[in-house]
Amino acid sequence: VIDAGLLDPLAQGGRALELTGDAAFLAAMLDAELALARSLADTGLAPEWMAEVCDGLAAPGLAAIDLVAIAAESRAGGNPAIPLVRHLSAAAEELRAGASDHLHVGATSQDILDTAAMIVARAVCAEALAQLRRLGEELAALADRHRATPMVGRTLGQHAAPTSLGLVTAAWLDGVTSAIATLAAVRAELPLQYGGAVGTGEALAAAASARGGGGGAEPAGAEPAAVLERLGDRLGLRVPALSWHSNRAPVLGLASALAQSVAAVGVIALDVALLARTEVGELSEGGAPGSGGSSAMPHKRNPVTAVLVVATARRTPQLLASLYGSALSEDQRPSGAWHAEWLPLRDLERAAVAATTAAVDLVRGLEVHAHRMTANLELTAGLVSSERVSTALAAVIGKRAAFDLVERASVESVRDGRTLRAALDGLLAEQPDAARAAAREAFRTAGMDTTAIDRVIAAFTALLPEAS
Amino acid sequence: VIDAGLLDPLAQGGRALELTGDAAFLAAMLDAELALARSLADTGLAPEWMAEVCDGLAAPGLAAIDLVAIAAESRAGGNPAIPLVRHLSAAAEELRAGASDHLHVGATSQDILDTAAMIVARAVCAEALAQLRRLGEELAALADRHRATPMVGRTLGQHAAPTSLGLVTAAWLDGVTSAIATLAAVRAELPLQYGGAVGTGEALAAAASARGGGGGAEPAGAEPAAVLERLGDRLGLRVPALSWHSNRAPVLGLASALAQSVAAVGVIALDVALLARTEVGELSEGGAPGSGGSSAMPHKRNPVTAVLVVATARRTPQLLASLYGSALSEDQRPSGAWHAEWLPLRDLERAAVAATTAAVDLVRGLEVHAHRMTANLELTAGLVSSERVSTALAAVIGKRAAFDLVERASVESVRDGRTLRAALDGLLAEQPDAARAAAREAFRTAGMDTTAIDRVIAAFTALLPEAS
Amino acid sequence: VIDAGLLDPLAQGGRALELTGDAAFLAAMLDAELALARSLADTGLAPEWMAEVCDGLAAPGLAAIDLVAIAAESRAGGNPAIPLVRHLSAAAEELRAGASDHLHVGATSQDILDTAAMIVARAVCAEALAQLRRLGEELAALADRHRATPMVGRTLGQHAAPTSLGLVTAAWLDGVTSAIATLAAVRAELPLQYGGAVGTGEALAAAASARGGGGGAEPAGAEPAAVLERLGDRLGLRVPALSWHSNRAPVLGLASALAQSVAAVGVIALDVALLARTEVGELSEGGAPGSGGSSAMPHKRNPVTAVLVVATARRTPQLLASLYGSALSEDQRPSGAWHAEWLPLRDLERAAVAATTAAVDLVRGLEVHAHRMTANLELTAGLVSSERVSTALAAVIGKRAAFDLVERASVESVRDGRTLRAALDGLLAEQPDAARAAAREAFRTAGMDTTAIDRVIAAFTALLPEAS
Amino acid sequence: VIDAGLLDPLAQGGRALELTGDAAFLAAMLDAELALARSLADTGLAPEWMAEVCDGLAAPGLAAIDLVAIAAESRAGGNPAIPLVRHLSAAAEELRAGASDHLHVGATSQDILDTAAMIVARAVCAEALAQLRRLGEELAALADRHRATPMVGRTLGQHAAPTSLGLVTAAWLDGVTSAIATLAAVRAELPLQYGGAVGTGEALAAAASARGGGGGAEPAGAEPAAVLERLGDRLGLRVPALSWHSNRAPVLGLASALAQSVAAVGVIALDVALLARTEVGELSEGGAPGSGGSSAMPHKRNPVTAVLVVATARRTPQLLASLYGSALSEDQRPSGAWHAEWLPLRDLERAAVAATTAAVDLVRGLEVHAHRMTANLELTAGLVSSERVSTALAAVIGKRAAFDLVERASVESVRDGRTLRAALDGLLAEQPDAARAAAREAFRTAGMDTTAIDRVIAAFTALLPEAS
Repeated sequence: VIDAGLLDPLAQGGRALELTGDAAFLAAMLDAELALARSLADTGLAPEWMAEVCDGLAAPGLAAIDLVAIAAESRAGGNPAIPLVRHLSAAAEELRAGASDHLHVGATSQDILDTAAMIVARAVCAEALAQLRRLGEELAALADRHRATPMVGRTLGQHAAPTSLGLVTAAWLDGVTSAIATLAAVRAELPLQYGGAVGTGEALAAAASARGGGGGAEPAGAEPAAVLERLGDRLGLRVPALSWHSNRAPVLGLASALAQSVAAVGVIALDVALLARTEVGELSEGGAPGSGGSSAMPHKRNPVTAVLVVATARRTPQLLASLYGSALSEDQRPSGAWHAEWLPLRDLERAAVAATTAAVDLVRGLEVHAHRMTANLELTAGLVSSERVSTALAAVIGKRAAFDLVERASVESVRDGRTLRAALDGLLAEQPDAARAAAREAFRTAGMDTTAIDRVIAAFTALLPEAS
Repeated sequence: VIDAGLLDPLAQGGRALELTGDAAFLAAMLDAELALARSLADTGLAPEWMAEVCDGLAAPGLAAIDLVAIAAESRAGGNPAIPLVRHLSAAAEELRAGASDHLHVGATSQDILDTAAMIVARAVCAEALAQLRRLGEELAALADRHRATPMVGRTLGQHAAPTSLGLVTAAWLDGVTSAIATLAAVRAELPLQYGGAVGTGEALAAAASARGGGGGAEPAGAEPAAVLERLGDRLGLRVPALSWHSNRAPVLGLASALAQSVAAVGVIALDVALLARTEVGELSEGGAPGSGGSSAMPHKRNPVTAVLVVATARRTPQLLASLYGSALSEDQRPSGAWHAEWLPLRDLERAAVAATTAAVDLVRGLEVHAHRMTANLELTAGLVSSERVSTALAAVIGKRAAFDLVERASVESVRDGRTLRAALDGLLAEQPDAARAAAREAFRTAGMDTTAIDRVIAAFTALLPEAS
Repeated sequence: VIDAGLLDPLAQGGRALELTGDAAFLAAMLDAELALARSLADTGLAPEWMAEVCDGLAAPGLAAIDLVAIAAESRAGGNPAIPLVRHLSAAAEELRAGASDHLHVGATSQDILDTAAMIVARAVCAEALAQLRRLGEELAALADRHRATPMVGRTLGQHAAPTSLGLVTAAWLDGVTSAIATLAAVRAELPLQYGGAVGTGEALAAAASARGGGGGAEPAGAEPAAVLERLGDRLGLRVPALSWHSNRAPVLGLASALAQSVAAVGVIALDVALLARTEVGELSEGGAPGSGGSSAMPHKRNPVTAVLVVATARRTPQLLASLYGSALSEDQRPSGAWHAEWLPLRDLERAAVAATTAAVDLVRGLEVHAHRMTANLELTAGLVSSERVSTALAAVIGKRAAFDLVERASVESVRDGRTLRAALDGLLAEQPDAARAAAREAFRTAGMDTTAIDRVIAAFTALLPEAS
Repeated sequence: VIDAGLLDPLAQGGRALELTGDAAFLAAMLDAELALARSLADTGLAPEWMAEVCDGLAAPGLAAIDLVAIAAESRAGGNPAIPLVRHLSAAAEELRAGASDHLHVGATSQDILDTAAMIVARAVCAEALAQLRRLGEELAALADRHRATPMVGRTLGQHAAPTSLGLVTAAWLDGVTSAIATLAAVRAELPLQYGGAVGTGEALAAAASARGGGGGAEPAGAEPAAVLERLGDRLGLRVPALSWHSNRAPVLGLASALAQSVAAVGVIALDVALLARTEVGELSEGGAPGSGGSSAMPHKRNPVTAVLVVATARRTPQLLASLYGSALSEDQRPSGAWHAEWLPLRDLERAAVAATTAAVDLVRGLEVHAHRMTANLELTAGLVSSERVSTALAAVIGKRAAFDLVERASVESVRDGRTLRAALDGLLAEQPDAARAAAREAFRTAGMDTTAIDRVIAAFTALLPEAS
């Protein structure tokens, strides 16, 4: 009875499952326990020989641990930390009698699980950032290459006014850049958790004081602080001002950043799916032969990657809501809110890695059909220039008059099957020459200000160091 | 890289994973494909020998299918039906040349996946109903046994007025009864899906007509209708009026019913967790020795089952929201909305089975500490009788005067550390004798109308046949 | 400082706000209080003259009540029932001294607010059902009229196979029919709430017993039961087996039904918006002149109603999730879960009325552009017939061979810009005559089985009595 | 038909409604339009006299605008910008003929609505930050004052180990500090929106070029860039690299920050409600007389503010999910996703202001019952010291042996009704003297390391400038 990704085509077989699966999480728990034991040894709160014991426990890694048994035993205490400690203690005793005394010192289950979650999160953020970086590079190249490829801009599903594929792509890149900024900031601040039973660090302090014996010259709290600092260094996680067992701000920030990453790529996929619709045909997914096939229709080439990314993006906000809901964590450690975080956080991380990875494939393989873009621009016989023409006319005859004239011309154009230009020519007969000239000029002008593309690419480029 | 339940202590190792895991889903897909082939053979649209081929494919079942490979191949087409059909076709050809021609006839991937989802859902509903039934029986017994066990009723976290454990339990049962009614109704109406590429049944009709050859006496559509009927019979699923590829009403009903089941048991767990708080101590989880232990605190006995059920109930509404969000399914089959259903529906089903199962354990093992209930009732020195006394006094001196008097007595009681009765006696000195008599009588009366308990049990009992 | 619908274009000015606004809710609270007082008088638990007092309080209705003041005073006690009772009591005393003693007897704030919520819900359900019924009638007519209007069926955004507008419309109607069934069932079971402080009905029983005085021949509980029955009759609400202060099943059922109604019309709006896209142009919103205009583009005709309905449908699932989240209601009356229901339930009701009403307008005004449907069907040069042709060929040369042939022909058709038919002719050269005949026949056949349309219309018609 | 806060006791009558109500939003739209017109005049793209016209339009402000009419007229075009422009144009023409030509130049409806939303958001962020700052100051004082007030720490609802009220309060403050940091960062980056029909800024560029006439020495795009800069200065909003019509990152960041603020105060309210439970009684809400009263129970003093804040926090995550869902915005401006933002964003802003404001009241009025804290600490006869004693013993006899001994002593303590200390004394008889000494010392030690409190206060203090 396993989940191997049958219902998760984007995640199966890839880094998304690898980084967030049970094995990865258990390995992170093991890392947390061993880093703690080593930090105690580093600071004299555990014997030096524990370093060797830790080496001995780390060497086989998960190979020595029965994941399914740990999962099964997690039912009694409500979490997998308890059986893992039991297992590790037995293994440690086999390496050296008394070694188990120096495992899990001063820690409570939530310390280990929260720290493990942050270890997993760090790897997830790094992977998602790497994918977003790749994606951004593809998009920057695309935006630059197509800065002058004309395309119709659509609003509320209707042709609205001309734009360029470069500007459309730049808007995608802008979203990716924002996502990178948010995620990089979060990654840099992921905290460890180590507060003991009720978050006071009391047990560690007691252990330090019991060890300290007689006339310790160290001020109270010096050793615990040193342990936390070592632990932070070893794990690459921030030492928080106070344990965050019931203050889930770190999880909220992480979750928002992951959800934003999914949203940033979801929007791209959504646009690709729409632009690949049969009637539109401006973009299509490349993909290997066989990709996008259908079980019923021999001719079908579905935008499968786009569709799967959109699917991922549709269910992400609810995962985020679950995690924000868990922020309502009562007491020093809560009765359910924390436990309710585990699965949604995993799902959200998985979604972020899977969706950003797939988005890179999607954009890399994108086929641009510029002739369809041009053809579609002409579908409305010039109506998409109405904003431009109206603005140009306004400088001569006033905005209201210009808007009304162009609106009337639009109606006639549709009714009579003429171009907007032809329809407008008739209506402009009684207007001053300057008006006619302005309109004519407006229809001719095709250039588009693309400095915005440069601004967006520059902002992305400036952020690149953060994303690595 | 697998998920075996490490982060899902309630589901791991049990029916929840078994019924909803990848293997179960793939088996349901296989059932759907084979039932379709058999139904075609039943109705003459496939050769009779296909029955034997189907037997041959069914015999090894999943043992002959590489789940991980199917999952991996699902990426290209975006769903696992396409590789399964490919696999089955190859296997069928080995059994008899030409057999693959009679597999997946007239079906599209979504037909198979939706039908498989309903096969899984049926088993999930049956299991959840069985658990809810067991739970209801426990609760009915508890309500009956404790109909007169006095207990304080709490509102907004404050002691409010007396109730009985029987009435509290009856309220839980009432919620369980509603959940059973909803779930049983949904189970009875789970539909199959079989509409072909765009839901018109066109391919099946074409196959029938191609086969029918010359002068078929059968009216158009007779054979397709017969296939659908056979398929419904074979699978135990309803034949819908029209395919529901983009009309997700069946999924919405199912999801709501599952979420209601989780809510019904979540409320019980939430109350148990609160009544087990150290200061309250009116209930505790039984549990095996070792259950509820802590990795940091030797004395801890945590209400682990209640906490895990609450955790499950906290994340359920968001799964429901995801599924309702997918109801916005465009076109004849949508570009992402459908794919976005797969994981949340699985998670919701898993949650429903796991939570209802755990709730049975929870209620069965419940330890009732009636002495603590009595002690807590007296904590406020009679204040909890204020509603009753006020009502009794109202009959003599009017409601407003009675309320004000009792309010003043309450304030004095708290301020002076006296019982409400003593405080009220003083204030009643100048009131008519009848008032004092009424108040005295009200403090004495302890009996509580428990006919509501009988009504609730009767309603549950009447529903029992639905739940089996 | 008011909300008058500035950000809610669908709801402003219509029944949606009228039925769910503050005034409607306060009126329902007034109804609940007066119906309770009258029911007490009906059953002898209040003096007969209270009927007249109630008439006196009901006559001016809300005109005598300062809604803003009630809202302001609701802060102290956390809900508006307390200030309303205070206001009503004062008004009652002015009508007759002592009358206030017979108001709010045995009730707690939640009794009044929950009952008021159900009174509002009843009106909301009635209105939504009426709109869904109108919508269904429009759709049934449309489906019937266009049963043979050919149209391309789209899946994953791609042209897939032919269907008819009638079948597309029938799928919409099918969803509307399901929504009606769910909503009608819920409406028939909306319960009143009347349990007193902790839901035991104790205060009412005490009042009855205090009144009953000496040798009442009535069995215990007879009068309270009679009051509840009268109250149910007066309000048109079901008498529940037990109060549901912390068992929110009635709210869950209501919320699901409303959300399903929004989903059923959301799907229609989503399809309309897609089919109205400039490149597709198969449908357009009718609308009054000026409707759909843009502030920037003189030529724009936006599918505004469809867009606003889609917008409503997008935010509905989260309102549902909030309400399911509130089902986690602890104690006899909870510390926040209940209060958290008020706004989402109102929003959901408002959304349901607004969206169903707008959907009627949308469908009534729909302009069908059949020539565009035909033109779009031909866009892929016959590829949309690939499923049909492949099925027909399969009967002669086997399914796999047929699928492969049609797939190759599809590739050639796209590559060489030929029709599928021409491409296939070449490939069929070496096939038996029967194969060529079957393919030719398949291209010719245009008829589509439309009995499904009749089934869907019949199912809707059978439900009509429920919807009124 | 209005909403005046009847169902929103926290928001009614206060800044929450004032800052987010229809009037505030319409005023922000007016600000956006006028700031745009003034910026055009500033940069020579509109005549200088428009400054005077803008003064004339700004003077009466909303008094000259019929909000209900604007709302009603918003139905046709789907948003309130269109009727506002119509109204403003008429008013401008009355002030000076031709003035309307210089309103809304180059803008689309979404430019005005998005910019208005950011204007509203800025005020909301400022208010929420001011409240969080006040709250933080109260919490810092409380944490400092009660750094040594002993209190039991609770985990999974059970007494776990000692802590202090100061540490508990510091954890609340830590969450508030994080919320301030997030919100302040978001406030500083709120962007204006001004891209025209499809976000290209084309219409503005056209207007500039039309005006520029002959031999403009300015490079292309210089004037549009200057307009944007002026507009940003006038509105106090950031100029974005590109318009964000379909890239909703700014809304996501804002929404997350607001939701985090609500979560930070929700957690405080949740703890207060639990600590105010009758059996616990460690905290109570102060509140004016009459606050917390009940309509049924004369004695009740409900923690009303805490309950209402919890209620607000429970529904917030779903509002967040709606907004993240809207990030799936297709095309250059989407068909529903954007419209779906309006109500949830308003609700979220309202919730943030209302909840943070109420939390200040809550914490300011908090009554601390230190004697109850002490009494509760002793409820378990020393069991809460088990972690500390076990740790101390571990230094002498090893961790496993110590844990087991204390666990056995705990069981005996509960079974025999003795203190943990007495039970342990017996079990330690056969242990070395040092063990007994260590245990005795551990029971004596009461001091707790409170340097974490100082760290948290310091972090808050360092952030104060951001919050103003």
